[in-house]
Amino acid sequence: MSASTPTSLPGDSRFFTRLGPFPIEELARLADAELVFGAEAPKTLSLRGVAPLQAATRAEVSFLDNRRYLPLLADTQAGAVILSPVFADKLPKHAIGLVSKTPYLAWARIAAHFHPKTPSRPGVHPSAVIDETAKIGADVQISPFVVIGPHAEIEDGVAIDTHAVIGQGVRIGAQSRIGAHVTLTHSLIGSRVTLYPGARIGQDGFGFAVGPQGFETVPQLGRVVIEDDVEIGANVTIDRGSMRDTIIGAGTRIDNLVQIGHNAQLGRCCIVVSQAGISGSTELGDFVTIAAQAGLIGHIKIGDKARIGAQCGVMSDVEAGADVIGSPAMPFREFFRNVAVLRKLAKKPDKSDTE
Amino acid sequence: MSASTPTSLPGDSRFFTRLGPFPIEELARLADAELVFGAEAPKTLSLRGVAPLQAATRAEVSFLDNRRYLPLLADTQAGAVILSPVFADKLPKHAIGLVSKTPYLAWARIAAHFHPKTPSRPGVHPSAVIDETAKIGADVQISPFVVIGPHAEIEDGVAIDTHAVIGQGVRIGAQSRIGAHVTLTHSLIGSRVTLYPGARIGQDGFGFAVGPQGFETVPQLGRVVIEDDVEIGANVTIDRGSMRDTIIGAGTRIDNLVQIGHNAQLGRCCIVVSQAGISGSTELGDFVTIAAQAGLIGHIKIGDKARIGAQCGVMSDVEAGADVIGSPAMPFREFFRNVAVLRKLAKKPDKSDTE
Amino acid sequence: MSASTPTSLPGDSRFFTRLGPFPIEELARLADAELVFGAEAPKTLSLRGVAPLQAATRAEVSFLDNRRYLPLLADTQAGAVILSPVFADKLPKHAIGLVSKTPYLAWARIAAHFHPKTPSRPGVHPSAVIDETAKIGADVQISPFVVIGPHAEIEDGVAIDTHAVIGQGVRIGAQSRIGAHVTLTHSLIGSRVTLYPGARIGQDGFGFAVGPQGFETVPQLGRVVIEDDVEIGANVTIDRGSMRDTIIGAGTRIDNLVQIGHNAQLGRCCIVVSQAGISGSTELGDFVTIAAQAGLIGHIKIGDKARIGAQCGVMSDVEAGADVIGSPAMPFREFFRNVAVLRKLAKKPDKSDTE
Repeated sequence: MSASTPTSLPGDSRFFTRLGPFPIEELARLADAELVFGAEAPKTLSLRGVAPLQAATRAEVSFLDNRRYLPLLADTQAGAVILSPVFADKLPKHAIGLVSKTPYLAWARIAAHFHPKTPSRPGVHPSAVIDETAKIGADVQISPFVVIGPHAEIEDGVAIDTHAVIGQGVRIGAQSRIGAHVTLTHSLIGSRVTLYPGARIGQDGFGFAVGPQGFETVPQLGRVVIEDDVEIGANVTIDRGSMRDTIIGAGTRIDNLVQIGHNAQLGRCCIVVSQAGISGSTELGDFVTIAAQAGLIGHIKIGDKARIGAQCGVMSDVEAGADVIGSPAMPFREFFRNVAVLRKLAKKPDKSDTE
Repeated sequence: MSASTPTSLPGDSRFFTRLGPFPIEELARLADAELVFGAEAPKTLSLRGVAPLQAATRAEVSFLDNRRYLPLLADTQAGAVILSPVFADKLPKHAIGLVSKTPYLAWARIAAHFHPKTPSRPGVHPSAVIDETAKIGADVQISPFVVIGPHAEIEDGVAIDTHAVIGQGVRIGAQSRIGAHVTLTHSLIGSRVTLYPGARIGQDGFGFAVGPQGFETVPQLGRVVIEDDVEIGANVTIDRGSMRDTIIGAGTRIDNLVQIGHNAQLGRCCIVVSQAGISGSTELGDFVTIAAQAGLIGHIKIGDKARIGAQCGVMSDVEAGADVIGSPAMPFREFFRNVAVLRKLAKKPDKSDTE
Repeated sequence: MSASTPTSLPGDSRFFTRLGPFPIEELARLADAELVFGAEAPKTLSLRGVAPLQAATRAEVSFLDNRRYLPLLADTQAGAVILSPVFADKLPKHAIGLVSKTPYLAWARIAAHFHPKTPSRPGVHPSAVIDETAKIGADVQISPFVVIGPHAEIEDGVAIDTHAVIGQGVRIGAQSRIGAHVTLTHSLIGSRVTLYPGARIGQDGFGFAVGPQGFETVPQLGRVVIEDDVEIGANVTIDRGSMRDTIIGAGTRIDNLVQIGHNAQLGRCCIVVSQAGISGSTELGDFVTIAAQAGLIGHIKIGDKARIGAQCGVMSDVEAGADVIGSPAMPFREFFRNVAVLRKLAKKPDKSDTE
C-alpha cells in the first residue's frame, strides 16, 4: 500500500458515523454479554470504538471468534474483548472480557452501537423524475436522477439512492433502501429490504420458443416478490416469473453477482453466496445455504437447511439437511472420498497395464 | 409469502397490458393449432387470459408441455389447454384442446396476443443530453437522463430506456430496445435487438503486455457488432475487439451476467445461458448452446449445433454437433461413465493395496 | 454478419483517434525493435496504421506472436510486421520486420502511437450534482449526471464518465478514469486508476450474524483502497472491508464480472480474469494470476507468482510460484494425471467385479 493510503482503524470518520464513548456496562447489556475481568483489569472502562486485536488500544473493544487468532489475543492491547466462554481463560490480564455464547452477534450489535447505519435524508432531489400518479410516503429519500414510474407506491421511510429506476406499478415497503443504479420493475418489495447498487430486478426471464424464423420470445407475465428483510447484493440479476412469481423469502441474504432465474422460489432466511446461479422454476426451502459459484439447474427442489458447496453443480433434488458438493453434486463425504481415491490411483503404477 | 403479496394470475394489470377476450377459434388460428373438444366441452369459448393449469378457470387458456405435469392436467379447471398431440387423449372432459406439434411456440404466441409487449412511447425527455451531431430517426423514445454522444445514429422506432449511455459514433438499428442503465460504446447494433438493463457493451478488452514498469495496456481497436434480432441479458459484459470485431450473430440469445471477451465471434441463433464466459478470439458456429456457468478458453472453435454443458470447462475445439460437459470438457457419455466408475471405486475396499 | 456491418480495419474513425502516418524508423525507436529488411523490401516506409496479417496492406504494420499464425505471415501483404527473433527468417520478401524480444509490448506501443487513448475533456457538465464541500482539482472532466458527495476529493486530470456516483469522502488520485455508471463509496483510489462501466466499489461486505429474529447485519467499517495504476473491469464488485481494508495492490488488473469480498488483499501486479471470485479476508501476494471463473474461499493466502487455473476451486493456501487447477485445487500435473487415469479406468472393463 502506498504511503498516502495508510491502513486506518475501522470507522474512518470520512465514511462512517461515530457515537460514544460508551461505558463497558452499557455494551455488555446491549450484547447480552457477561463481564469477566482480567487480574489487572480496571473495574470499569469507557470505550470509544471497535478495532481488530492487533490494532486496538485500551480505548477499543476487540473480538475473537476463531481459534486461529488466539496468538493475537495474547498480544492485544485492547481494553475489552468479545469472546466465547471457551476462550475466556485466555483473556490477557489487563483486559475485560465480554463473554457471549454468540460472540459474532455481540460484535455486530456493539459495532453498530458505535457506528449506526447512516440515516436516510428525507426529501426529494429536484432532479428526480417522478410520475404524478406515483404515491410517495412520509420521510422518503429520493436522490438525484432517480426515476419513478406511474402508479408506483413508495412507503414511509424508504431511501432511494442516486440513479435508481423504479418502474411502473412497483411497490416498495417501509424502511427499504434501494441502492444507486438499481433497476427495479414488475416487482413487489417488502419492508426493510436492502438492494445494493446495480441490482437488476424484474426484467424478462430467459424464455423463448423455436419458431420458423428463429427464436420467438415467450412473454414473461409474472412478477418478482421480495419479502421483508431481504438483502440483495451488487449487480445481482433476478428475473421476473413467466407464469407464476419469482419469490425471495423473508430474511434471505443474496450476495453480489448472483443470478436467479424466472419462477425460482427461495424460502425464508436462505443464504446465496456470490456468483451462484439458481435456474428457472427451482425451489429452495427455508435456511438453505448456496455457497459461491454453485449452480442449480431448473425445476428442482432443495429441502430446508440443505447446504450446497462452492462450485457445486446441482442437477437433481436435494433433501432437507443434506450437505452436497461437486459437479455433479454428491454428499460431502463421498466427494472427498472420491478425491482421495483418485489421487491414490494416479500416484501408483498402473498395474492393470502390465499384469 | 406474506399476506400482503398474494400470488396473482399471470399478467398483473399493474405491470402488463391485457387485450381480449378472444374467441378460441382466433387463438387456434394464431397458434396454428387444431381444436379438439372434450366430451363435455362447449362448442366455442371466449377466453380472457392465460394461466397455469392449477390456477386457470374456464375463462383461461393453459398449457402442458411436460409429462411430469400430467396430474395437474387431470385436475385443471382451464377452459382450454395447449398441448402436444401425444397428450391430447388426456384432455379433461370439460376442456377444449389447442393441439400443436410445437406447443411452447403456440403458447408464446397466444400469451403475447393477450399481453403484447408494451409499445415504446416516442418522444425525447427534456432531461436527456443528446449531442447535436447525433442523428435521431422517427418515433424514437429517449427516456430521462439518457446520454447520446456525437455522431451516434439512432434509427426509427428505437426505444432507449432511462440512464442508458450511447457513445460516440454508435449505430442502433430500427426497432431496437436499449434497457435502463446500459453502457454502449464502439458498437454497431442491428435491428430489433434488445439489450437488458446494465449490459456493458464495447468497453476495452482485457489486454496488456508486460513492460519494464508493469503492465502496459494494449489498445483495443476493434468494435462490437451485434446483428439483427439479438437479445442480451442484464449486466452482461461484451468487450470490443482488439484487432478485429467482437461479433454476436443474428438471432443469438445471451442470458444475464455472461462475459464475452474481445474478438469473440458468435454465429447465428446461439444460446448462451447465465454466468457463462467466452474468452477472447473464440469462435462459435451457428445454433451453438452454452449452458450456465460454462467457460471457454480463448482462441478455440466450437462447431455448429454443439452443446456445451453447465459448468463445463472447454480447453480445445469442439466439433459440430458434439455434446460436451465436465472440466475439462469431454463427451456427455464419457463424463457420466467417469462419475459412475469413480463412485464405484470409492465405495469398495481398495483391493490393490492388499493384494 | 449482415451486409450493412462489414468488418473494418482496426481503428474505425467513428470510434478511435488516428495519428500518423509515421516513418518506420520512428516506430522502431518507439518499440525498441530492430529493423530487418526482406529481400525485396523498400529501404524505408511510411505507415498509416495497424492491421491483422490477413487484412493489412503495404501501408500497415502487422503482428505475429503465435506459431499457429505462421501461414498468415507467409501470405500477408503487410508492409511491416512486428515479430520475435525466432520468426524473423519467415518474413516475406516484400516486408520489413520490426524484430523484438517482446513483440506484444512492441505492438502495444506502436498501436497506441497510431491510436492514442481519447484525451479527457476537462470541464463540468451543468447537469452534474456536486456537493459544495467536494474538492475538485484542475483539468477534471465531470460528465452529465455525475453525482459527487460531500468532502470527496478529486485530483487533477481525473475523468469521471456519465452517471458515475462518487460517495462522501471518496478520494480519487490524479489522472484516474472513472467509467460510466460506476458506483464508488468508502474508497481511496490511487493515481492513473481505470474503473470500467458498472463497477461497484465499496458497498457493504456480505456479513451477518444469526440473531433470534433472523440474520443481523454486521457493520462493515473498513474501506476499499485501490493503489496506483490498477484497472478494474465492467460490472466488477469489490466490497469494502469489515474491520480492516479491502486492498487492491498497485498495477493489478481485474477483468469483468469479478467478485472481491471484504478484507481481501491483493498484491502488486496481480491478474484476475473474468468471473473469478475471491472470498473475504483472502490474501494474494504479488504477480499472482487467477484465471477465469476460479473461486478462492476466504481466509487463505496465495503466494507470489502463483497461478490459479480456470474454474479452479481453491480451499487452502497456495505456495509462491505454484500452478494449481481443479476443484479442489491441485498441482497442474496431478490434475491432468487424474484426468488421464480416470479416462483409462472408465474405458476398460472393470476387472475387479469379475475376478
